[in-house]
Amino acid sequence: MVTLASTITIVETKANPKKRSLEDGNQPAPKWRIRLGDRAKGIRNPIREIMDTIAGKENPSKTLVSLAQGDPTCYPHLRPSVEMVSAVSHAVNSGQNNGYQPSQGNARCRTAVAAFFNTPGRPTLQAKDVFMTLGCSEALSHCIAALAAPGSNLLLPRPGFPLYQVLCDYHGVEVRYYDLLPDKGWQCNIGDIAKLVDDNTCGLLINNPSNPCGTVFPREHLAEVLNAAAELGLPVIADEVYAGMSFSRPFVSCAEASPRVPILSVCALSKRWLAPGWRIGWITVHDADGAFADAGVPETLLKLCQVSLGPSAPLQAAVPEILTSAPNGCPWHTRVLEALEASAKCCVQRCKAIPGLEVAAEPEGSMYLMVRLQPGVLDINTDDVRFAGKLLEEESVAVLPGQCFCAPGFFRVVFAAPVEVLDEAWDRIEVFCRRHAVK
Amino acid sequence: MVTLASTITIVETKANPKKRSLEDGNQPAPKWRIRLGDRAKGIRNPIREIMDTIAGKENPSKTLVSLAQGDPTCYPHLRPSVEMVSAVSHAVNSGQNNGYQPSQGNARCRTAVAAFFNTPGRPTLQAKDVFMTLGCSEALSHCIAALAAPGSNLLLPRPGFPLYQVLCDYHGVEVRYYDLLPDKGWQCNIGDIAKLVDDNTCGLLINNPSNPCGTVFPREHLAEVLNAAAELGLPVIADEVYAGMSFSRPFVSCAEASPRVPILSVCALSKRWLAPGWRIGWITVHDADGAFADAGVPETLLKLCQVSLGPSAPLQAAVPEILTSAPNGCPWHTRVLEALEASAKCCVQRCKAIPGLEVAAEPEGSMYLMVRLQPGVLDINTDDVRFAGKLLEEESVAVLPGQCFCAPGFFRVVFAAPVEVLDEAWDRIEVFCRRHAVK
Repeated sequence: MVTLASTITIVETKANPKKRSLEDGNQPAPKWRIRLGDRAKGIRNPIREIMDTIAGKENPSKTLVSLAQGDPTCYPHLRPSVEMVSAVSHAVNSGQNNGYQPSQGNARCRTAVAAFFNTPGRPTLQAKDVFMTLGCSEALSHCIAALAAPGSNLLLPRPGFPLYQVLCDYHGVEVRYYDLLPDKGWQCNIGDIAKLVDDNTCGLLINNPSNPCGTVFPREHLAEVLNAAAELGLPVIADEVYAGMSFSRPFVSCAEASPRVPILSVCALSKRWLAPGWRIGWITVHDADGAFADAGVPETLLKLCQVSLGPSAPLQAAVPEILTSAPNGCPWHTRVLEALEASAKCCVQRCKAIPGLEVAAEPEGSMYLMVRLQPGVLDINTDDVRFAGKLLEEESVAVLPGQCFCAPGFFRVVFAAPVEVLDEAWDRIEVFCRRHAVK
Repeated sequence: MVTLASTITIVETKANPKKRSLEDGNQPAPKWRIRLGDRAKGIRNPIREIMDTIAGKENPSKTLVSLAQGDPTCYPHLRPSVEMVSAVSHAVNSGQNNGYQPSQGNARCRTAVAAFFNTPGRPTLQAKDVFMTLGCSEALSHCIAALAAPGSNLLLPRPGFPLYQVLCDYHGVEVRYYDLLPDKGWQCNIGDIAKLVDDNTCGLLINNPSNPCGTVFPREHLAEVLNAAAELGLPVIADEVYAGMSFSRPFVSCAEASPRVPILSVCALSKRWLAPGWRIGWITVHDADGAFADAGVPETLLKLCQVSLGPSAPLQAAVPEILTSAPNGCPWHTRVLEALEASAKCCVQRCKAIPGLEVAAEPEGSMYLMVRLQPGVLDINTDDVRFAGKLLEEESVAVLPGQCFCAPGFFRVVFAAPVEVLDEAWDRIEVFCRRHAVK
């Protein structure tokens, strides 16, 4: 490391440029003062870390079938609606959406989001309650950053989406996991929540419909969880990016399930609208008792938005038309849900017929199924990383091991592929499991 | 604050739901555990803080003319080219750009950026050296976060764009200012740089062309600054968002001016391509001696990109066509520069004829002019906040006080408006100054 004294010396020698000029071949290479930022350097991507151990090892004689990535657009049967695309195209061609937007988001866009997510039993949601973000990831990041007081901890679901932990680590928030119970339809262990809370708990994160579990909480269960939050004084971060993406049970939002809990709900065009690459998300602030307002949460979310300056203007401009043209129950949305339901049913049916595999709870929404490895049936036993690795190696089928979601002994299947593709994948999984069954 | 003991008690009473049910009107309002995250809460927006004191006070009898916002798209004479808009429209309608992109950015897009910013005298820039970001703001944020080792400080230009300080504060980096010298064409005070450096200095931020000064550094000056950086072992963050937006002197990038300094250069479609709302920016890593690679900077930038997941996919997909269809010197680009030059000349000429005002250095690029308030001429003297406030109040002309850029005694004029609008604004500024001239 160059010291202050030596740098001053170096600069002083500039008076004699010949001595230290660029052309002086004898000059020592500079010692660059480059040290990494701790927070940036510390970012861990659990999926990547686990997948790096098995990636690129697919069987070269079989086409890869990926049931691993949570992108609903990988196959052409799931596409944004014609009206959605036309709304964006119109916004691009209008010449009106090239400039900076207000940091919190385009006002017309926020008004439309507020109208779409207005919740019975709560005060009318207004444009001021909406913060537009770069997809749901930034929405989650802003919520966690806003509540991340020094020393705080956040309660996360286990199994759960690994980004939650990444963001907590980044914002200096300790992670505490409450369990989702596979034998109770992946419902929350409410007793866990109460036991985990202390004075530094800054919130309860609820993800419904669930990634990776595929469950949609019944209204009564959600009300019970929110009741616990209220009694514990915990504000809720509701990851509802799969809102409206449920087929066997109606989706109920956290804000609707309990009017008395302050809730930051996050959503995006990424899943239910099938456009994750557009990077359009939002936070809706459903306050209660003015708790968020009194604490300054909306102002803090605005500050975070002022640094990032929000998502792409033409896409924001298209949001009002997108939301009105593709409401829940419209033909396009119905077709999407029908396709997802058919795919989910195919997975459940095929899985049930395979030795060593067990569906913990049939999926009701999102696009994920968690499969349990039954102990003692396969020669891999319940080692999910080994299962995923060997399945890729032998059958070129990619699934994510449960350990990516803190759920060892399970693997996650994305059922956004069409039934023909899934059938091919399950054929291979079945052959694989029969081959690996303990004799 | 609810204590751990009391929360356990509360939960235990759930066994007797009647006692504490939602319907129990006597139940005390919950005490919500909401405390703000220090870093988020601490975000300060210096422009907003200063402008809040004068905003909304324009003269109601005169139409507002804003020369305050650095958005080149406020007037219709400056618009993205037809080819740019058509490229985005095509990308939206192709149906191919709805899914998640690689975190670092679409490969074809990065290849195009690398080709566009490839620099003579440096190793060929490759797709791996490019990181796509949500505009230039996120590009700057990622660079500062990557280099923000604990206790580090960064050298920033003064006057300078206030976001630099906001981002340093957010990432825990101490700010140290080196001066730009108004009487030397706003060139860097290189002696300052050497004096400010210590063992914890993590880099030198160079902004060229300059916001707010409007200067374009001569190649020789830039080489001299970079020479100092090399001798001090300082990596450079080059804010080159106004690259290619220079009319009276050719723009030379930092990477070109010195091949031996490791440089993180940031740019975007926001200014020179007139599309700030599209939120498409990038970092190009121009390493030297493998200094960034050895320190792990590219991996760290990738980690930061993995949290944000990058800018909008259809816009990324359009970047190759945007860059090839609107090269430097094409008719559209030439027209843009001619308009900016005419506007700049109008401002300089008008300003010179007004008592109490002085152009420190004639603008050569970007879209900004810094005007000095001469001491003792106006009854406002050199109080720039008062000047901007009273100008708005009396003449409905908005300019930013120099204090927004750490430059008291100056004000910044955005000359992205067409000459007719600027003439109207300067008419009013002239009347204002004559009215406020000390008798």
